[in-house]
This record gives sequence, C-alpha cells and structure tokens, in this order.
Amino acid sequence: MSELRQDPTTYDWVIIAKERAKRPWEFRKENMTRPYFPAHSDSCPFCPGNEHRTPEAKAVYGGPGEWKTRVVPNKFAALTTDVTAEREEIGPFRKSPGYGSHEVVIETPRHDNFIPFMDDSDVGGIIRVYRDRYHALKKDPAVRTVIILKNHGRGAGTSLEHPHSQVVASPIVPPSVRRRYEIAVQYYDNTGRCLYCDIRDYELRTSERTIAETEYFIVLHPYASRYPFETWLMPKVHNSSFGNISDDEVADLAATLKQVLLKLYVSLENPDYNMVIHTAPVDDEHKAYFLWHIQIIPRLSLPAGFELGSGIYINHALPEETAEYIRGFEVPNGETA
Amino acid sequence: MSELRQDPTTYDWVIIAKERAKRPWEFRKENMTRPYFPAHSDSCPFCPGNEHRTPEAKAVYGGPGEWKTRVVPNKFAALTTDVTAEREEIGPFRKSPGYGSHEVVIETPRHDNFIPFMDDSDVGGIIRVYRDRYHALKKDPAVRTVIILKNHGRGAGTSLEHPHSQVVASPIVPPSVRRRYEIAVQYYDNTGRCLYCDIRDYELRTSERTIAETEYFIVLHPYASRYPFETWLMPKVHNSSFGNISDDEVADLAATLKQVLLKLYVSLENPDYNMVIHTAPVDDEHKAYFLWHIQIIPRLSLPAGFELGSGIYINHALPEETAEYIRGFEVPNGETA
Repeated sequence: MSELRQDPTTYDWVIIAKERAKRPWEFRKENMTRPYFPAHSDSCPFCPGNEHRTPEAKAVYGGPGEWKTRVVPNKFAALTTDVTAEREEIGPFRKSPGYGSHEVVIETPRHDNFIPFMDDSDVGGIIRVYRDRYHALKKDPAVRTVIILKNHGRGAGTSLEHPHSQVVASPIVPPSVRRRYEIAVQYYDNTGRCLYCDIRDYELRTSERTIAETEYFIVLHPYASRYPFETWLMPKVHNSSFGNISDDEVADLAATLKQVLLKLYVSLENPDYNMVIHTAPVDDEHKAYFLWHIQIIPRLSLPAGFELGSGIYINHALPEETAEYIRGFEVPNGETA
Repeated sequence: MSELRQDPTTYDWVIIAKERAKRPWEFRKENMTRPYFPAHSDSCPFCPGNEHRTPEAKAVYGGPGEWKTRVVPNKFAALTTDVTAEREEIGPFRKSPGYGSHEVVIETPRHDNFIPFMDDSDVGGIIRVYRDRYHALKKDPAVRTVIILKNHGRGAGTSLEHPHSQVVASPIVPPSVRRRYEIAVQYYDNTGRCLYCDIRDYELRTSERTIAETEYFIVLHPYASRYPFETWLMPKVHNSSFGNISDDEVADLAATLKQVLLKLYVSLENPDYNMVIHTAPVDDEHKAYFLWHIQIIPRLSLPAGFELGSGIYINHALPEETAEYIRGFEVPNGETA
C-alpha cells in the first residue's frame, strides 16, 4: 500500500511507494568502484597554476600564493551585473534582463579533496566563505535573494569535478520561495509559532527520521521526502537567514555537514547530489516565521512525466528506513575513506 | 546577456541563457545510431502472447484475439482503490492512504510501433482510449484529477520500451495544478478572458514560436520554456477539459501529434521525452478560464541545484530558435523513418 504524505512547508504531496519501495541498500550504485581523482589536474581550470583560466577572483582566502579558497565569477554566468534589473511587459509576457551575480566558490586547491575528507576546520572555512559572499552580494540594493548551492557529480548537473559550490544573487524572489513564506506566515499567524521549528521539534521528539543531533543542529530525512535519502540540516536556534549564522554554529555545522556527506559517500558509494541552503529573502532576515536550513538531494531517482505533470513526486524509499540505515553507519571523524 | 522570462501561467521565471545557448542542432544526440527495436519481444510483458504477465485488462480495443490497444492496471501502481481516501493528521503532518487508479495504456501490439510511425487513425485510436479512460475513472466520486502522461525512453523515466502511456486518477488536486487555476481565475476576473486563449492567440499573431497550425490546434515552443524544445499543443476551441475533446478534434490531434513527435524524432534523433495532458480537475470541466493542452518535454537538460533550490530553470535554448529549427524539418505525412 502506498501512502500520500503532505509536506507542510509547501503543501506538496508525495507518494511514498511502500510496496514498490526499495530497501535502503538497494540505492547503492551497482558494481561501483570508487572513482579515482588526481590531487591535481593540469586541464582543470580550478586547480592551482590555472588561475588565469577563470575570471578575476572576487575574493581569495589563505593568501594569493597559496590560496585555500577562491571565489570567482562564473565564466558562464546565468546572471550578470552589466545590465539593468528593469522589467518589461510584452504581450501577455513579462521579461527582464538577467541581472544578478553568479559566483563559483572553489573550495580547495586540491582536485580530490571533497568535503567528506577535509579537516573540519577547512569545511568551516568554506561555510564562512558562503557567509561572507552572502553579505557581500546582498549589499547590492537590487538583490532580493541569495541562493547558495552545490552540485556534486555529473548526474547532479556539474561538468567540473574539482570541489566547488555556487552563490547566486537575484533581484527576483522566486515564486516557489515566496510560496514557502506564505505558508509559513499563515502558520505563524494561526499558531504564533515557526512552522519549521515545530517540525524540527516534532522530529526530535519522535526521532524516527533523525540522523544526528549536535549542539546546534539536527539532521533528518523529512517526513514527505520527495527523493530517496533527501536530507535536511536544521539549526536549533531560530533564525530566518543563513546570513546570521554564528561562529559557534559554523564550527558545529562544519563537523556535522562533513559527517552527513561522509555517511552518504560511504553508504551509497559516492552518490551524485545537490545541496541548497534555503534562506529568507534579504528583506526578511529577522522574521519569526522561517528557519533557514540545508537540503541535500542525492540523485538516485529520475522524475518522470507524472512528477513533471502533477508536481506529485513518487518516492521509492521510506524516510524512516533510510534514516535508520544512515544512522547505522558509524564513520570515525577523520576517516579518509 | 541572459534574459529572465516569466511564465504567465505559473508566474515562474526562467533564465534563457542566450550567450551560453546552444544552437538547436547541438541538442541532437552525439554519434547516435537509431536504436533497433524488434517488432515482437518474447520477454516484453506488453507484447501479444504475454497478456498473462499483466494484471487483468480494464479495457481491450480491437478484439481480445487481435487487440489494438489494451488498458491494464499498473502492476506497480502508485495508487490503488483497495484503500480509503481519508486523510489523517499526525503531528505537523498530513497523510492519506494512496487511493486512486493507475493504469497503463499499451498503445499497440507491436513492440516497435512508436507514434511517429503509426497511421493517423491508430494514433486517433489511442487518443480516444485516453478519453474513454478519463470518463471511466472520473466516475469514481473520490476522484478529483485525471492525469494522462507518457514517458518515452530511459532518460524520461521508463524501463519498458514497448509503446505505452499512463492514466492516473487521484483524489487530490495537486498544489501545482491548483496554483495554475488560481492564476488563470485571477486573469479571468481581471480581463474577462481565458489566459491560455490569450497566449495562444498572441503566439498565432506573432508566429515567432509556432511550429504548426491546423484546423483545431496550434503547436508552439512556449515563451518561458523551462526546457530546450519544450512543446505545447493548444486547442483552438476553448475547453477546460480534455474530456470534452470532440471526434473532429481527436482526428486532427492524431495527425498533429504524430507530426510533432516525428519532427522531434528526426531532428533530435529519437530523444527521450515526457508528455502530459494538462486538464481541469473533474469538478471544473466547463470553466471559462482554463484551456486544456498538451506539454511535451524532451529530456535534453538536467535540472541541478539551482533549479531544485530556486524553482528558476536555466534554459540553454532560445524557443524562437528551436521553433524555427523544427519548422524547417519537412517530414512527409506517412514517413516511416
């Protein structure tokens, strides 16, 4: 028997296909041998020595001679600041030049140093760079939203294997983001509480879908997961914007994120995944009704016509089972796989 | 320079990456040799002789000894009628047993007879089966939405190559569908006109993005296409529900759909695609504000973290260019490739 579950943050429904469900370990890639990546690649534009192959850096951390993290404009930016953000109506349509910023965070000089194998402090450094760029980009008065994301692996939409993430600043609040706020505001107006904090606290109490709890974060597989092994990292301290993350939270998040990605790497054999930081629009950084959080989506399933047509996703994994499976993977802090 | 375009039917924005855009022919699969499919496969559960490998047919057309189209329950149905449709609240969540119908339309006994190679009359037969099943499934008083869709090729989420489509009946109106109606109702209340008819008529007048015009249909690449070569078939006669399609329209749609899919097959070398019929909820079959239509999504691009996180899609094709490219492909009616 399948089960329809509603995501209270979007009102979207998900079909959890219990009977067609795969067991968690069946999502491991078949016959996978872990790929070999060299520590340095002459042909990689993100490797040291090839700095001239990227646009000029917006920020360099760790010193230009021996940098640890570089932030560069995306060579193929989807949005740029050399146009206006004005909107224009044309027949029944509306358009605007693609105003905004699109930056790449080169996370490490090492071609093969993925987050699961980094020192906690280096992961913390990347998160601080995210926070820096968030604050740098929001200074632009036209910017309404800053989206921080990471695509890992070809199946997640990246063509460059060198560890990197992206920071996008846009003058538009996307309707899907606006909708989440409308729902959260309604919940807040009805109950006086933050919907996301209520979800987090319910998950902590029932602990069926939680993976980890640290001083500042909890990690869980959401009740209405659209994707197998979809994972959320939620702060314990209410805060609508990632931009407000404290240094203590950064240090905790670094260790937690590393553990989560290491567990995914080990349990599913280096799956392709997308990671997104959901945060309030820059005008709403101190709201009581939204909680910033991180969503990780391993690319283990393929949305088909039903998903594209109805917006209802069919998930062939039970989040309670995948959470239990991940909890069972003990990986020592500092494993280098 | 990229351009942000808003889809007036969803308010979603799309980034048309003009400078990063590929030329239309660059979306052809590289080094593709057209796959060979046998006319009959002993191992295929949808081929004649293997009827016992599907659940018992709900409808058979053309006679059981020599059937032309069979409708069978999906062996791995996402929704079933042997549960109730009652909803239940559990903490901050809402759930419901997976009530509904999930049928497979086996379009032809021939394993290799894809729509582009069928006779128009056989395509018309399939569309009439869609209409029949629509009316059969909506009789269930719990059903609110009927979704008709087709996944073609592995990259579009199907594992069986034998030509087939799916009909799903659900007690839920998905939020993404409801949102489209809210926007269309607002437009209607403001203007007294159907938003979709206005879009269709604008496209007919400007003809930049139209592919074909027949007596009853127009075919176009939408202004804010989320995907390269996204294609819409829109009826000329206002009608909110596919269930109301007339016999004359069926005959026209059969020839039109066949041509559209043949052109895609030839121009892009048999791309994987999804096809969805967007139609009003069964309670809204005679509304002035919605126009049923068909959406075809070739799977030529991969949504990544930006799309999943923001809902803003980056499209590397210009719909004006892809429409021109497709218009240029002359394929005689009756070509068998």
